[in-house]
Amino acid sequence: MTISVAVSGASGYAGGELLRLLANHPSVSIGAITAHSNAGSRLGELQPHLHSLSDRLLEETTAANLSGHDVVFLALPHGASAQLAAQLPEHTLVIDAGADHRLEDPAAWEAFYKSEHAGSWPYGLPELPGQREKLQGSKRIAVPGCYPTSALLALTPGFAAGALLPDDVVIVSASGTSGAGKSLKANLLGSEVMGSMSPYGVGGLHRHTPEIEQGLSQVAGEQVTVSFTPTLAPMSRGILTTATAKIAPQLAKQAKPAEELRQIWADAYQDEAFIHLLPEGQWPSTKSVVGSNHAALQVAYDERTGRVLVCAVIDNLTKGTAGGAVQSMNIALGLNETLGLEQLGVAP
Amino acid sequence: MTISVAVSGASGYAGGELLRLLANHPSVSIGAITAHSNAGSRLGELQPHLHSLSDRLLEETTAANLSGHDVVFLALPHGASAQLAAQLPEHTLVIDAGADHRLEDPAAWEAFYKSEHAGSWPYGLPELPGQREKLQGSKRIAVPGCYPTSALLALTPGFAAGALLPDDVVIVSASGTSGAGKSLKANLLGSEVMGSMSPYGVGGLHRHTPEIEQGLSQVAGEQVTVSFTPTLAPMSRGILTTATAKIAPQLAKQAKPAEELRQIWADAYQDEAFIHLLPEGQWPSTKSVVGSNHAALQVAYDERTGRVLVCAVIDNLTKGTAGGAVQSMNIALGLNETLGLEQLGVAP
Amino acid sequence: MTISVAVSGASGYAGGELLRLLANHPSVSIGAITAHSNAGSRLGELQPHLHSLSDRLLEETTAANLSGHDVVFLALPHGASAQLAAQLPEHTLVIDAGADHRLEDPAAWEAFYKSEHAGSWPYGLPELPGQREKLQGSKRIAVPGCYPTSALLALTPGFAAGALLPDDVVIVSASGTSGAGKSLKANLLGSEVMGSMSPYGVGGLHRHTPEIEQGLSQVAGEQVTVSFTPTLAPMSRGILTTATAKIAPQLAKQAKPAEELRQIWADAYQDEAFIHLLPEGQWPSTKSVVGSNHAALQVAYDERTGRVLVCAVIDNLTKGTAGGAVQSMNIALGLNETLGLEQLGVAP
Amino acid sequence: MTISVAVSGASGYAGGELLRLLANHPSVSIGAITAHSNAGSRLGELQPHLHSLSDRLLEETTAANLSGHDVVFLALPHGASAQLAAQLPEHTLVIDAGADHRLEDPAAWEAFYKSEHAGSWPYGLPELPGQREKLQGSKRIAVPGCYPTSALLALTPGFAAGALLPDDVVIVSASGTSGAGKSLKANLLGSEVMGSMSPYGVGGLHRHTPEIEQGLSQVAGEQVTVSFTPTLAPMSRGILTTATAKIAPQLAKQAKPAEELRQIWADAYQDEAFIHLLPEGQWPSTKSVVGSNHAALQVAYDERTGRVLVCAVIDNLTKGTAGGAVQSMNIALGLNETLGLEQLGVAP
Repeated sequence: MTISVAVSGASGYAGGELLRLLANHPSVSIGAITAHSNAGSRLGELQPHLHSLSDRLLEETTAANLSGHDVVFLALPHGASAQLAAQLPEHTLVIDAGADHRLEDPAAWEAFYKSEHAGSWPYGLPELPGQREKLQGSKRIAVPGCYPTSALLALTPGFAAGALLPDDVVIVSASGTSGAGKSLKANLLGSEVMGSMSPYGVGGLHRHTPEIEQGLSQVAGEQVTVSFTPTLAPMSRGILTTATAKIAPQLAKQAKPAEELRQIWADAYQDEAFIHLLPEGQWPSTKSVVGSNHAALQVAYDERTGRVLVCAVIDNLTKGTAGGAVQSMNIALGLNETLGLEQLGVAP
Repeated sequence: MTISVAVSGASGYAGGELLRLLANHPSVSIGAITAHSNAGSRLGELQPHLHSLSDRLLEETTAANLSGHDVVFLALPHGASAQLAAQLPEHTLVIDAGADHRLEDPAAWEAFYKSEHAGSWPYGLPELPGQREKLQGSKRIAVPGCYPTSALLALTPGFAAGALLPDDVVIVSASGTSGAGKSLKANLLGSEVMGSMSPYGVGGLHRHTPEIEQGLSQVAGEQVTVSFTPTLAPMSRGILTTATAKIAPQLAKQAKPAEELRQIWADAYQDEAFIHLLPEGQWPSTKSVVGSNHAALQVAYDERTGRVLVCAVIDNLTKGTAGGAVQSMNIALGLNETLGLEQLGVAP
Repeated sequence: MTISVAVSGASGYAGGELLRLLANHPSVSIGAITAHSNAGSRLGELQPHLHSLSDRLLEETTAANLSGHDVVFLALPHGASAQLAAQLPEHTLVIDAGADHRLEDPAAWEAFYKSEHAGSWPYGLPELPGQREKLQGSKRIAVPGCYPTSALLALTPGFAAGALLPDDVVIVSASGTSGAGKSLKANLLGSEVMGSMSPYGVGGLHRHTPEIEQGLSQVAGEQVTVSFTPTLAPMSRGILTTATAKIAPQLAKQAKPAEELRQIWADAYQDEAFIHLLPEGQWPSTKSVVGSNHAALQVAYDERTGRVLVCAVIDNLTKGTAGGAVQSMNIALGLNETLGLEQLGVAP
Repeated sequence: MTISVAVSGASGYAGGELLRLLANHPSVSIGAITAHSNAGSRLGELQPHLHSLSDRLLEETTAANLSGHDVVFLALPHGASAQLAAQLPEHTLVIDAGADHRLEDPAAWEAFYKSEHAGSWPYGLPELPGQREKLQGSKRIAVPGCYPTSALLALTPGFAAGALLPDDVVIVSASGTSGAGKSLKANLLGSEVMGSMSPYGVGGLHRHTPEIEQGLSQVAGEQVTVSFTPTLAPMSRGILTTATAKIAPQLAKQAKPAEELRQIWADAYQDEAFIHLLPEGQWPSTKSVVGSNHAALQVAYDERTGRVLVCAVIDNLTKGTAGGAVQSMNIALGLNETLGLEQLGVAP
């Protein structure tokens, strides 16, 4: 079976990463490649690393150009993808790497995105409890945000097991600059970011906050509130998320809470191909997952403060965006989940 | 007045930074420069950036070689500085950039450093309430750790004002690799750290944890417990600390808690030469303080979670070590506090 | 057909890259994985990015442990590989990523390596004229050095076409730090290399100099002399080589020498899967080939100086070492040359 | 004596660096600070590292705003500075950090800048033979380009001594991204430049080529032709220039040409405060001069090719732009040449 796919937003980082992965996907044939202001250009000018596709021309991002494929990937600014998706055939598998269809609560959407809610689609994080099944056969999938991917992988096992308290969750993430896209902003210039760390969206303002809370709350079965602070790190790719929550009193009273906590994460991910709980004492680095769909985690219990700390690393463009999208496509179409995603991290 | 100073540990990063600052200090004359395994070398081989001192020879680090100066700076591994300090004359101003004399509580020392407590010295962070006075005329000063410097600058105004609750303090810091010193470890190789973020000492294990708690507790007047997670960032210098605490209920009930919080920090630092609360909406970057003794902060109130978030940036080697040491020397000797520390951040 | 391979030197960067590529090679089964001082460790401790192999144990690097496989890859310090290779069966395909068997001239070997010459093997750069044929069916292959790979790809088309003069060849290369291996040297620490460029081996001292001259001379049919200067760049991976030579007088007199030159390179590489002459006006970046076996080049003619300038980029660990080794293995075994090497550059 | 200075182009990198140095210059008072599109902003918004000037407002860049000061620094795009300079009083010391007044030959200007030549001013590189004297008392000074600064410091001693041949000079430079300014171009984004080296202006096209040739030719007393290739390195600041030329036949025949060559450079720079020929065997790194006005060099003779290789490092923004400008100001005004420039390199 050869699946015909179309990729929009191909001149951006998410679009480029989708093409990088899809170019080596054994069951996929890449059809339309579209862009907005760069329509008409050779792909090789904009994505010089995609050598096997360098002579392909970018078409205009329109529903007409994208239609007629089995799968359409949308890597567009929020707002744009909902509008376009509405024009695509119902039988086409549409996978939106943007934000438009991630939030179920219209009020949360409106509060953080200041626009009308487009409705929600099945959420493409198959490692969440029960989520894989919801993606099978689905024709519409919302790819999670990169920060939520790392945060939910870090904390959902604990919430699913009832081991964590729903308030006082604090998450601090460091992201590579590709998470901010190719936008021409002075603070994203190499001269500014090299050798520098800086926070942004501090004070609970980042749009990924309600998405993290949505995922944790669904798993916990009660409202989880999160203090989330993103920071920009001097690297192109990768997210390191440090997530901490108070453990439930009954667990703290156990003889060996650290071991019980560890077992919860080990059980949650033992059958997952892409999620790796590291051996005790080994801490993850973002470099170990660069260019791959893998995530690595470590869990520690801080007895003095009664807090569990989970550190999770992903590549924001791969597991955090394009890899997650391809993984969801594989599931939706009934393919082997790891197809086209076997690539290991490029380190050092 | 010319002050004669000696610097030990001159082949390391802290020692090199002390010499960089002292070489341009208008009241200082650099006497002995000492090292351990590198004794006998030209300084220029080990610290090629110190052009004005490149032909100076490194002497052996001994009490005899260090004695006879007005000020002795110790930039030695912990354990070594206490031993050496005990042999230096009482009338010499000894400034220890190491950890040996920072903690007042022997039990905390023993728990985290697994060795005998050497006793505590006046703590060289003059921006803490009442601390500047304690340094005036002192003959022994313990330079704060780099992480505690950033964490205490971030949170002490709130605790001094009674605005913060003493539990549920969560601090995540990203540090440049120079904080780990010049030790030849595989995880500090350029190939490993470039393009990568990684945590370490997770779960409340880092030795700076009790030092942060000590400072916050003294200011708060009650025991403050901190969950502290350090991470290693792909840059040579700089610390970005993200610190968060719950605000006191009576403050949360005010009409404009965000403004009241902001005023607390503004008041605390309005007369400080090196500490800058940025205008609202501007977030600090570590690059803005590289090579300087300045710190920049921003404060935000997250109403949804009832938490204040403070982001603070310093250069770990300057304000976090050598600059703080020189600032304390200036105060102890009755000099202008900013002497030799006028240099601005080297950006971009 | 499944080919059984063994990899020695698996704790280093070259060994790790070999395993990264071989783990996804569809015709390969990874047998013994060996190391020296790290024998007995889990691979996951040393190469945390190789998730699919993380539980494999490192065996001791001995001929006995490596024997019994179809292919043995040696990623060892020079000297060590020749010694080990001598003990491996003649019918085993041995691919040496080290230097021991690259140079044909014993005098050149002894002058630059100060040790006895071990004899030369077929040179694993199939893109050289006539070289691919020499690798087919070969049982011993010497993988080219990373700098020579880039330099020979840059200049051999011109020399093969008689377009370049054999003296006044000047080559300056910038390499990522992984080219220096995992050795614990102070100048390779992240704190030292980040934000810094530095030269080394200046003055024609680098051991890759005779290897570059050997390749160019063979193609030119006369002795080519090269001034080669390597520099260390603040990145983990990648080589940018800037190579320049004077063009032959008869070519300079042509009506359009720039176009004729360009055509020479275009012709030389038109059928090569991994070598890409970029469209006019587009310059290569090392990032565009990171993690891939691709090389990108651009050619310019500087009429004022009568020099051609060729810029070539490769990933030093992939096309420059492990990728080149796998490519040569594919050729030697009669497999499709690109098998296991389809991965594109990981950018941005 | 307090000298009143005005700085235009204050929102850019060159302007920011001028302000960083001038803020600590003991004889200088900073008057007008001007910008173009950012006029009206607080300096702290645009240059957050300049804490002591953060509340200063940017005025419009006009001759009226800049007049009335003893010294005016122009850090403007080429074309703009010549136009503005023509409106400033003759008795004002005008120091142009842009290109407009560097080239003496109108034909060279027009060939490389495609615009009308504005005439040349005394060239602000006092380390060139006889150049310091030309700057004393001058009222107009052209600050050299950053690449020419490094290239001329590298090679002029050899040409002044008649030791080098005027053709076959090959120069390859690696520059930090701040050399390209704050322009919002996709190839300057952090995501693109981190982890990547790339060339540009290859083939003798870079505008600094005629400037390098002008300086070398003046010193050599004959026309020197240069093949110059600039590359972009993943760092904010710093230039590493690798320059090579053939040595004169009579020198090559000497008993010890390497020693004679070394002595030429040693003699040339023995009295220079900012230029350091490193001890034999020590190679310069750009980090050793970051933020400082120092340059470090090393010289090697490659007997096999008859070429001398000189590696020179500077900070492109300091010695390469703003530091050189302040040094020239000091000379022009009869101040101590090192005033305000004592700062050492910020390493690691």
